[in-house]
Amino acid sequence: MRILLTNDDGIDAEGLRALRRACLNAGHRIWVVAPDRERSGSGHAITLNSPLYVDEVDFADGGPIGYAVSGTPADCAKLGIRAICDEPPELVLSGINRGPNLGTDVFYSGTVSAAIEAVILGVPAIALSLAGYDDLDYSYAADYALRLAALVEERGVPEHALLNVNFPAVDGRRILGTAVTRLGERRYQNVFERRLDADARAYYCLLEESLEHRDEPATDVWAIGRNMVSLTPVHIDLTNHGLIQTLVPWARELSR
Amino acid sequence: MRILLTNDDGIDAEGLRALRRACLNAGHRIWVVAPDRERSGSGHAITLNSPLYVDEVDFADGGPIGYAVSGTPADCAKLGIRAICDEPPELVLSGINRGPNLGTDVFYSGTVSAAIEAVILGVPAIALSLAGYDDLDYSYAADYALRLAALVEERGVPEHALLNVNFPAVDGRRILGTAVTRLGERRYQNVFERRLDADARAYYCLLEESLEHRDEPATDVWAIGRNMVSLTPVHIDLTNHGLIQTLVPWARELSR
Repeated sequence: MRILLTNDDGIDAEGLRALRRACLNAGHRIWVVAPDRERSGSGHAITLNSPLYVDEVDFADGGPIGYAVSGTPADCAKLGIRAICDEPPELVLSGINRGPNLGTDVFYSGTVSAAIEAVILGVPAIALSLAGYDDLDYSYAADYALRLAALVEERGVPEHALLNVNFPAVDGRRILGTAVTRLGERRYQNVFERRLDADARAYYCLLEESLEHRDEPATDVWAIGRNMVSLTPVHIDLTNHGLIQTLVPWARELSR
Repeated sequence: MRILLTNDDGIDAEGLRALRRACLNAGHRIWVVAPDRERSGSGHAITLNSPLYVDEVDFADGGPIGYAVSGTPADCAKLGIRAICDEPPELVLSGINRGPNLGTDVFYSGTVSAAIEAVILGVPAIALSLAGYDDLDYSYAADYALRLAALVEERGVPEHALLNVNFPAVDGRRILGTAVTRLGERRYQNVFERRLDADARAYYCLLEESLEHRDEPATDVWAIGRNMVSLTPVHIDLTNHGLIQTLVPWARELSR
């Protein structure tokens, strides 16, 4: 397959390197187009009205060079698909992210946003995240990504859908299978502390956040807590179709 | 009502000022917490691991001061709700944006992302955008926002839903009413040009984009083209529920 790889941890991230290695070993044609630094929490930001610098990166293993971009993950997907790939990619893999991208957090996630951007541009995409931060082993996730890519190649995913995959950060032998899930809820307490800098200018720091964890069955949050891989279909239609009829009388009043 | 105002055009933007004025005239209790500069296209980016500077802004009209934040629109919503508002806001109004936020563009929109952040934090929210760039008159939109806020106060909007409102940029007397819509499609051609800077370093510029406009009935894009206000219910659940059953056999294969 022709696969575009990107991420939000930056082009030097271990998770991206593991995925790249796995793709090359499997014989795929790949392009790596990724941010030149960590871009976690960048959401679906895109760079408007300023140039995107692109530096070539030699991975020093005989494989194809990569492209380090001075932009966001969504920029990388857009630029990769529209300008850097010399043939249309058949799949975008985004990740493997260091840390989970579960529930409402997908809104903040550069990893998922790159995949959303690909789908907006008509290319199937998979976002991949490993739900841990320390002593991570990306090999299970990288191998899984290739098996999933093969299923996408064989069966396709419907237009406008992407797959969001999270892996528990445990040894592959302890993983109990895959659960098809919906996005769960993760609410943060978001405690901000007000401080003054040396010039007595006020600033706020987001302190360590406590997570309100709703462990509802069949959510991605739930699956990860049970050592299962969560496979969540995500769409790019944010319309709340169920509310349209409710709002029709509102529109009538507002039109007066 | 207790209303938090924010936007992505920055605290000096005319659309925010018009909305603020209208809220004060109507007797609402307000807080203005907005980016200290234009933040269009910032998507749902949030600021992690760095301080958010907050400067007080005197609007010099006897009304309450505002807060200019060195962050994104989503930061402003979060910081406003969690730290700056001394009572819980009952509604967040984001805008009035200069330029439309229609269809898939809502993913890039700081205006909509601030509203999404509010909804994630449990506060009803309305995103407001005026679909033009020059010689804008925000008075119709500001008045409309207050009428819509009154309906929200009276009837509520379901948890986890926000309202995305776009106004055609024409004189209020030419507006033909309100259509309840779904998000349409706006696909850009995204032509990038590769250039070299003075040091022969490569960069890409996103050239003027041509828009593939799908003018499907009952979409927001369609309504604006017919001089109607579009009122679109947006939800924050990105799960593609319709695909879950389709993926169950995939999960079985992947679990082997």
